[in-house]
Amino acid sequence: MLELYHFEPAANSMKPLLCLSEKGVEFTSRQLNLDGKRWVQYSDAFLKINPDGQVPVLVHDGRVITESTVINEYIEDVFPENPLRPADPYWRAQMRIWTKYVDEYVCPALTVIGANFATPFAQKIDKKEMEAILARIPLDGPRRKWATVSSTGYSEAEVDDAKRRLGVAVQRAENALCEHEWLAAPTYSLADVNAYSMMSGTERVIPQALSEAAAPRVHDWLRRMEQRPGVKKALSYPSRMRPPTPQPA
Amino acid sequence: MLELYHFEPAANSMKPLLCLSEKGVEFTSRQLNLDGKRWVQYSDAFLKINPDGQVPVLVHDGRVITESTVINEYIEDVFPENPLRPADPYWRAQMRIWTKYVDEYVCPALTVIGANFATPFAQKIDKKEMEAILARIPLDGPRRKWATVSSTGYSEAEVDDAKRRLGVAVQRAENALCEHEWLAAPTYSLADVNAYSMMSGTERVIPQALSEAAAPRVHDWLRRMEQRPGVKKALSYPSRMRPPTPQPA
Repeated sequence: MLELYHFEPAANSMKPLLCLSEKGVEFTSRQLNLDGKRWVQYSDAFLKINPDGQVPVLVHDGRVITESTVINEYIEDVFPENPLRPADPYWRAQMRIWTKYVDEYVCPALTVIGANFATPFAQKIDKKEMEAILARIPLDGPRRKWATVSSTGYSEAEVDDAKRRLGVAVQRAENALCEHEWLAAPTYSLADVNAYSMMSGTERVIPQALSEAAAPRVHDWLRRMEQRPGVKKALSYPSRMRPPTPQPA
Repeated sequence: MLELYHFEPAANSMKPLLCLSEKGVEFTSRQLNLDGKRWVQYSDAFLKINPDGQVPVLVHDGRVITESTVINEYIEDVFPENPLRPADPYWRAQMRIWTKYVDEYVCPALTVIGANFATPFAQKIDKKEMEAILARIPLDGPRRKWATVSSTGYSEAEVDDAKRRLGVAVQRAENALCEHEWLAAPTYSLADVNAYSMMSGTERVIPQALSEAAAPRVHDWLRRMEQRPGVKKALSYPSRMRPPTPQPA
């Protein structure tokens, strides 16, 4: 049995949703927070599944795999049909350089921007209640983020710098797409899956950096991604951010 | 032809040196900065090999692979003999969770501590000269690090927090080594290779956290690593930090 614990189809939760959808691998969706409740990943029940309190999590015949980028490599290892890793080791390495870049450079910038959007909500939470929530967050990165967001918030300089870094990533993608049709290689790969999952919302955050004039190839790549049946299928899971789209037959 | 551009056998340069040594794969060592000169990774000659100005770099029959963690996966893909990736996909995933943790959590903490050691040297560099060096550093992470180190330096609070994070990583390793003989799995893997490459110097930085009393399993793991012929071979490359050791036959 293959179960995926996930949030709405965006960011890290989108990565395995999109990977599984592209490959046509059947799985049981365990979408958390469908009721809109926050902090479910720090509940006793979920911490038994992932003591780090992070989503998504894949459970395959009772064995727990965490970390979205690792989950997607695991899916490739176990379900090699419709491969999303290039067969040539050189291109496979380029794919991994991109998934690593998305994790280490793009994701931290998006985290600041996303957390900044949550500031008005987080600052309204009662102080005692917030302290209790913070005490339940196992990893110090997320704990500090919520401590910041619920108190001072990120500074304008920090948010601006995060946007600047996103712009750097867009230009890196633009240069890469000059070299080959897909992000890391001549073929579609986990690099496209992971980068799209993290960057699909970037147009709302830094629209000018992603305009057809500023980044024509990234602009076109986003449109090509949107047309893929796998992307449409992954986006059909319920979302607070978008209305649900009908799932293709 | 397989060439590895690297610095001394420590941190990121140690990772592929140790991987190749463990597997017994022959390669040509291109050790940079043997003359003690700094900034060679930002020279015109090296930027032609890796425009990001980062070391190590593997060049295989003219094709360039960057990023030490990706390099080690590439070596496994191309030279499958003496595997350092577990055959079972579950344990392989656990291995990748550890190499990712080393890159995203351990490495940034060590970067602060290492850079802090370089502060006295960097602050003596002429301001104009430093500006010219900074202008040559392609990635903003390393550029900011050197801008900080050569001006204000890291604060005591930042260095203390980096040491605290290293201590968290040591306890994570201690817990992992309760579960199995090696870091990520019952078998020796790239997790041990990468973690040892980054953490072997940790005993000098936070000796109390790595004592036999505080972290008996990590303490023992470090000793077991030091006995491995592959580790001895990798450490036999010249180093500013240690005297060269004779290479085993």
